[in-house]
This record gives sequence, structure tokens and C-alpha cells, in this order.
Amino acid sequence: MQEVIKVAVDAMGGDYAPGEIVKGAVNAVTMRQDIKVYLVGHQDVVRKELEKYSYQSSRIEIIHAQEVIETAEPPVMAIRRKKQSSIVVGMNMVKEGKADAFISAGSSGAILVGGQVIVGRIKGIERPPLAPLIPTKKGVSLLIDCGANVDARSTHLVQFAKMGSIYMENVLGIQNPKVAIVNIGAEEEKGNALVKETFPLLKNCPDINFTGSIEARDIPNGEADVIVCEAFVGNVILKLYEGLSKTLVSVIKQGMMGSLKSKIGGLLVKPALKKTLKDFDASEYGGAPLLGLKGLVVKTHGSATAKEVTNSIIQCVTFKEQEINEKIRKNIGTSPIETE
Amino acid sequence: MQEVIKVAVDAMGGDYAPGEIVKGAVNAVTMRQDIKVYLVGHQDVVRKELEKYSYQSSRIEIIHAQEVIETAEPPVMAIRRKKQSSIVVGMNMVKEGKADAFISAGSSGAILVGGQVIVGRIKGIERPPLAPLIPTKKGVSLLIDCGANVDARSTHLVQFAKMGSIYMENVLGIQNPKVAIVNIGAEEEKGNALVKETFPLLKNCPDINFTGSIEARDIPNGEADVIVCEAFVGNVILKLYEGLSKTLVSVIKQGMMGSLKSKIGGLLVKPALKKTLKDFDASEYGGAPLLGLKGLVVKTHGSATAKEVTNSIIQCVTFKEQEINEKIRKNIGTSPIETE
Repeated sequence: MQEVIKVAVDAMGGDYAPGEIVKGAVNAVTMRQDIKVYLVGHQDVVRKELEKYSYQSSRIEIIHAQEVIETAEPPVMAIRRKKQSSIVVGMNMVKEGKADAFISAGSSGAILVGGQVIVGRIKGIERPPLAPLIPTKKGVSLLIDCGANVDARSTHLVQFAKMGSIYMENVLGIQNPKVAIVNIGAEEEKGNALVKETFPLLKNCPDINFTGSIEARDIPNGEADVIVCEAFVGNVILKLYEGLSKTLVSVIKQGMMGSLKSKIGGLLVKPALKKTLKDFDASEYGGAPLLGLKGLVVKTHGSATAKEVTNSIIQCVTFKEQEINEKIRKNIGTSPIETE
Repeated sequence: MQEVIKVAVDAMGGDYAPGEIVKGAVNAVTMRQDIKVYLVGHQDVVRKELEKYSYQSSRIEIIHAQEVIETAEPPVMAIRRKKQSSIVVGMNMVKEGKADAFISAGSSGAILVGGQVIVGRIKGIERPPLAPLIPTKKGVSLLIDCGANVDARSTHLVQFAKMGSIYMENVLGIQNPKVAIVNIGAEEEKGNALVKETFPLLKNCPDINFTGSIEARDIPNGEADVIVCEAFVGNVILKLYEGLSKTLVSVIKQGMMGSLKSKIGGLLVKPALKKTLKDFDASEYGGAPLLGLKGLVVKTHGSATAKEVTNSIIQCVTFKEQEINEKIRKNIGTSPIETE
């Protein structure tokens, strides 16, 4: 018999919760037979949404959680106080082995804190990075770290590089993934203090295929599979990626409305443009895993719609099947630092 | 009689030197009567290029410099040893008052080092930032600092904010320019150590119109006129801006070649697309000034063509006319730190 992957999904987090979250969950269990989804949230609210769909009832279960952590709440306090929130309840399911993974479009801060405090780090992992996939000309690259734990140390970045390699090799199927560190020049002597300290460590790391520095202008070309940086820089890259893509598309569309000729042209190119932009849409690739935890925690965009939720749920299956956490534990989790 | 602005231009620096540089200089003196250009470079090489054009001969003069600093050379060493290089000769002209400004598309490192060592900082300016204009949906914003002096302190960032405000108000004519600091969230408590330390200083600074944090996704919308960050982050933003714009345009164009229908549409939208992309082309806005020096030093893109060179030369006129350096000296240069 096929193993069923149990995924707890925060039904209350994100801009389009619970509607799009519930819809995404229903789509996931419809597409795949090997998934069971636990929708974590207020039972009345979730049930009302679920009633709109038909699905195999044994494959979706509601787990009641009467509180919601808002985006603006200070994360540490929220995780500590709101024991009945969908994030805390869902994370506890992962901790207790009742779920293999937890997905949320809610407060990034709370997810990062909860991941560390409730699910816990794999022994030896100093800091769990948030690692989204970003679209490139050649496919996707993993940008690691985009989390909220800024001001990282060089040893953190080396662990990010290793975890990113394992993820890209096993979840994305990229053989010997190219690892590069974000820098402001190609030469080894360039960079800030952190990059200068990290560069030789990566260079001498036998477990990864380190190709050196990558300048931000080369990231969209897909010149590296794993792009290592500390979280502040990663967050800037990720958000500029989203913002600039959106702005460029909007000015291009606006530009096409300028004359009758270009309007007609615009209609003709619309399907091709749509397809191109779909390839460059981060939500196509699911959420970002928080790597290095004892269980799988995935953060989707706050603006996640059903499609991203479905993709994120399906992503969890590969993560589990490929035993990513076992590989991280075996290959990186050897330092004596305790997890709690 | 009209005052003539004297601009020394590095004829040997950049990917398209000396051809495009010389062409840009000729165009500048053709367009404006109040500019005299000194082309600094090897006299035989420069003369040969100049002979291709007709122009008022008193308005362009060749200043012989027999050496060239290559991009790969370590900047400090290059500035110290190559006394006859176009960069050192040009900078010395500014230092000695023989030129009002120096423009180069050559080695960024050498320009930054030379600016500080040869031209010198205005008394009280701790660090001169490189401040390019970046295109946005609403026009342009000044991104300050994008230089090579990474790991800045909070006091540097406050000076950047003030210099950026003076520049945008007086050179670009933006009343009471909005100043924001690049951050990974909108709240004051978000950010890395540097941002957390700088935020209250900017908030309490009476000379600027500080609007708080700006997330990278909002930069392309033009939500701030002056975007403050330390140089590593600024460099990443600038280069990702260039790289992502180029990649998106290339994938969109490629997408349009997919079917006959979209090919025809592509032909019809081509002029509109070209116009839109021109608005989003950084080279339209000239080079980036290195602010806070005793004279004006401008760094253009390494890939600068004649258009960018011309625009940069003309930009120097406004800079001089508006007495930017006098304003910086008066408003910021009060700290007791010596310039050398």
C-alpha cells in the first residue's frame, strides 16, 4: 500500500484565507491519492468553506484552532501566548508526528519562531533558513536565506549552502547543483566582511559544487542553482524580484495601450505574454521550506491563492519521499550544538 | 557672459572607449554652449577618434595621459602607481580647479579610491556615496549608496540621506524629497542591526523628509525619492534591477516568437515596447555622482554609450549651477572629522 503523506495546512493565514487555502487543499487531494490534508482553523469557518466542494471525505480533516496570529503581532509573544492559534496547533501536529508537514501563508515571523521553538532544529543546525525558489531564464534557483534571522555568521551560510544543495539535488532533481554566494564583484577579495569570511569556507567545502561569487545581475540568468546570502540581502532580492517583475509588466501593458496599432498588437501577443509571465511567477513553484527543522514547515506567500497552496502541498510529498531531513541530519547535523 | 562648465572626461575608460566616449563629448558640446570638455587619454588615440567629427574646436581639448587603469587592477595600488593614467590625470584636474567635474566609465574601484585620495572629501563628510538614479513607475529614485565601501555605519547612512535629499531637490527639482531606508518590513523594529540603529537617527533628523522603511518590492513603484542603504545592499539592488529588466525583456521577446499570431503582434507592439523600455533604461539618466567630494566625480556604466556620456556631461552643469557641493558643505559638512 502507498504511504500517505499527512499535511497540516493553516486555513486561517494569508490574504485569501480561508477561501483559497481550502480550495487549494481540495485540489491537492483531488490530484494526488497519497495525500491527507488537515485543515487547521476555526471549525465553523473552515467547514463552511469545505461544504462548497465535493471530495473524498476521509482525505481532508478539520482540526479546530480558535485563535489566529495576525501579521502585525510580535512573533515570539504570539507563539507563546496563542496556544490555540492555527500556527501553534499545526506546528504541534508536526512535533508530535501527527503530520509530516505544516504549511502556512500567515505571519512569516510567527512561522519562523514557531518552527524553531515548537518543531525544533535538527541537532547541529545552527539556524533554519527560509529558502524560496525564484524563477530564472533557465528554470528556478533556490535563494537561501530569505528569513527574518538577519545578521548571520559565516558558519550559518555554509550550512545554508549544504542544505540548499541537498534540496535542489533531491527535490528538484538537479545533479551536482551549482552553489554561488551573492557578492558585489566576481573576485574573491570583493565583498563585505561576512562574504569575505564565508568565501574560503565554501571554497574548501567538499560537499558542495561551489562556483564562487554571483553578482545580482546574473541571478535572473540562472547561473547558479543555489544562491547563498544572509537573510536581509535575500529578502531584498526576493522582494525586488517580485516588485520589479510586476512593475515592468504593468508599464509594458500600459505602453501597449498607447495607440490603436499597439493595442491590436497587444491583443495578439497576450496569450504568449501570459505564458511567459506564468513561467516567471514565483507562486507556480509553491512555498518556501524552512530547512533544517525536525519536521517540514513551508511558508507560502501571504498572497497565496489556491494554486500555490496546492503546489506547496504536493511539494511536501517529494520532500518526505526524498527523506530530505534525514539527509540534512546525516550530512550536516553533526556539530555538537544542542537544538533546544 | 555665460559661465562655461569645464568637464574632464576619461576617454579611455569603459567597454566602448574611446569611440563612444568621444562621440558623447562631441554631442554634448554640440547641444550646449556652456560646456567645455577635456578628453583625457592617449593623445594619438583620442585625436584619431575626434577627427571623425566636426565641432567647435575651442570647446574640446585633449589632455594627454599615457596610462590606463584596467578594471581588474587593485584600485589603491593603481591610483598610487599610475600617475599618468587617465583617471589620475582627470582627477588631478578637478583637484587643481582646472576642471569642475570628472566623468569616467572606467574601474569603479579606482574612481572611488581616486575620488577620496585625489579630489578629497568635503570636511565633515565621513564617506562619499555613489548614488545612481534608478528608473521607477513614477520617474526616478536616487539609490544611495551603491559604492564599494561596504559595511557602513549608521552615521554614514544619515549623511547619505541628507546628501541624497540635497541632490534630488536641487538637481532633479523634487520638492521636499521623500527619504526611505531599505528594510525587510515596514515596522520600525524590523531590520538588521544597522537599520535598527539608523532608523531613529533618520526619524529625528530635521533636515530630511523621512518616510520610514521601504521594502524592496516597493522601490520600482517609486514610493521614495531617496532610497538609503549601505553599499552591499545598494549594489545588489542596482545590479538586480539591471539584470532582471534585461532578462524579463528577453523572455517576453522570446515568448512573442512562439507563434505567427504573436510574431505579428510583436511587430505591432514593438515601437511602444521600445519606448517603455527606454523609460526604464538607466543610461537615459546619466552616470552616478560620487557625492561629498570637493569636486564632482561621476561614474557612468562600464557599458556606457555616447548617449549616457552626453547625459552625464550635461548633468554636471546642473550640479555646478545648483552649487550642490556648497549646499553639502553648508548643511552637512560640520563635523570635525578631517578630510585626509
